Amino acid sequence: MEINITKIRLKLPEDSNGVLVKNLYLACDPYIRGFMSNPAYLEPYQLGSPIVGYGVAEVLASGHPKFKKGDMLWGKIGWEEYSLVTSPNDLFKIEHTDVPLSYYTGILGMPGMTAYAGFYRICLPKKGDRVFVSSASGAVGQLVGQFAKLMGCYVVGSAGSKEKVDLLKTKFGFDETFNYKEEKDLDAALRRYFPEGIDIYFENVGGKMLDAVLSNMRMHGRIAVCGMISQYNLERLDGVQNLFALIMKRVRMEGFVVSDHYEHYPEYVNMVLPLIREGKIAYIEDIAEGLESAAAALIGVFSGRTVGKQVVKVA
Amino acid sequence: MEINITKIRLKLPEDSNGVLVKNLYLACDPYIRGFMSNPAYLEPYQLGSPIVGYGVAEVLASGHPKFKKGDMLWGKIGWEEYSLVTSPNDLFKIEHTDVPLSYYTGILGMPGMTAYAGFYRICLPKKGDRVFVSSASGAVGQLVGQFAKLMGCYVVGSAGSKEKVDLLKTKFGFDETFNYKEEKDLDAALRRYFPEGIDIYFENVGGKMLDAVLSNMRMHGRIAVCGMISQYNLERLDGVQNLFALIMKRVRMEGFVVSDHYEHYPEYVNMVLPLIREGKIAYIEDIAEGLESAAAALIGVFSGRTVGKQVVKVA
Repeated sequence: MEINITKIRLKLPEDSNGVLVKNLYLACDPYIRGFMSNPAYLEPYQLGSPIVGYGVAEVLASGHPKFKKGDMLWGKIGWEEYSLVTSPNDLFKIEHTDVPLSYYTGILGMPGMTAYAGFYRICLPKKGDRVFVSSASGAVGQLVGQFAKLMGCYVVGSAGSKEKVDLLKTKFGFDETFNYKEEKDLDAALRRYFPEGIDIYFENVGGKMLDAVLSNMRMHGRIAVCGMISQYNLERLDGVQNLFALIMKRVRMEGFVVSDHYEHYPEYVNMVLPLIREGKIAYIEDIAEGLESAAAALIGVFSGRTVGKQVVKVA
Repeated sequence: MEINITKIRLKLPEDSNGVLVKNLYLACDPYIRGFMSNPAYLEPYQLGSPIVGYGVAEVLASGHPKFKKGDMLWGKIGWEEYSLVTSPNDLFKIEHTDVPLSYYTGILGMPGMTAYAGFYRICLPKKGDRVFVSSASGAVGQLVGQFAKLMGCYVVGSAGSKEKVDLLKTKFGFDETFNYKEEKDLDAALRRYFPEGIDIYFENVGGKMLDAVLSNMRMHGRIAVCGMISQYNLERLDGVQNLFALIMKRVRMEGFVVSDHYEHYPEYVNMVLPLIREGKIAYIEDIAEGLESAAAALIGVFSGRTVGKQVVKVA
């Protein structure tokens, strides 16, 4: 990744129905990694072009009826100071600005909607369910854990440092937590916290953790497969051996992608905004300053350095 | 496995509400292997005791209101000439005897109900779906393929010999078939038959085939996990690497066990019995004669020797 400096005219092309925006915040989302190398993605990044990702921006000029000058929006923009979005239909207008705008890269944006869709719509939780969340201090995991607590579930989260593990209990109210890097035997760790097994696993990491979870699922358990961050930089993927447990325990394992669920975004905002305003839900961000810090910030997400949602403040 | 000869009195104990039955047919079902070594099963077989499995039997004496002398039944009995079933509630009375009685170990018994529950209730098929069935000439696979054809699906089956593969086309009406032992690259084989991907995979084998299928699933595909016979005799299980496809293609993968679905057995019989009588569904059995042939017959299921449902005729 490198910084390129070019000059553009801050003017919307004639007859454009796009929007010209000034970018304020960019999100360092794990899925970005896939667009750099995974041939399964339809539109991988092109070398020499700016990364495209979720962010928050202010409209400078609009040729689209949905937006006007001065509006705030969130959605896919470029990792650059100004973006011209030629098809703004997928952008979301920001209606509520009494909360930090950066939240629209996280709890009020794609990761929040991911947690909502994955937990409520894929896991189909009920009170008393035993829930395990991996990568639990991440933007999605911290919300899944809190949604589960609000529903009356027993919630355990794993993360990769003492700082993160402590946050899960003190800030997000997880019942139990563990540092997966300090556990020689993940299977034993899960048995310790789930002696009666796991009803719901919110899968963010894949690999060895998934194998250990499979051995510890309860009857009719559900696994929402949201991400597998432990695998994204491996040359040779970990092999998962315990899939027979899907039969023994009648487990449903289901992958999902947030963009299939955006029609439910308004109902999610209605649910979560009061929780934020009343302080009933906590949310932690890690804000890097300036576009020049973006590359290191993104890499930090994969090295485990980041705590909470990694955001880059552009302006 | 060994044959033990003991003498018993053919008399129901006083005050028993069990049934004393004469065993006619025994089923060599793959799941039996699990009860020999898998600690996850709650009641593994005890060394020195007869195997318990599905079979067809005639009632000699009954202390249970559901059965009377002369009734035919199917359900779990011992691998022995006569069995005393002390809790007959889980046994099914055979109402229709105009079809071969051995069918109640297969198409009209547990494997038939497995195919029905797995295909209709887990895969949620619709007309035009592209369906792949592994172990397709087995008792379950041959039925899944035919149910899928009846629904108007495109159906491809894999099996492990020329004889089996030929049967899939000539007898069961599969659209395409292949011998997995002759394919150097399972992924390429699947791409050949599913250039647009697989909507439904009925999983009977696990391991490398599952990995290849995962790479070839279509958007919103479904995988019913019924069995993983390729893994049952391995010291070290194959690792499945392509689970990230569950996310990319929003795939639901769900394990199931037939016993959870027996409440739907009457509706299944209502559906399949006319199809059998009208010759609209084919069914192939491999019948071994005599209890003394049972051990070899069971092993044949795992070595790939068996074609169709392996049954042992006891009397």
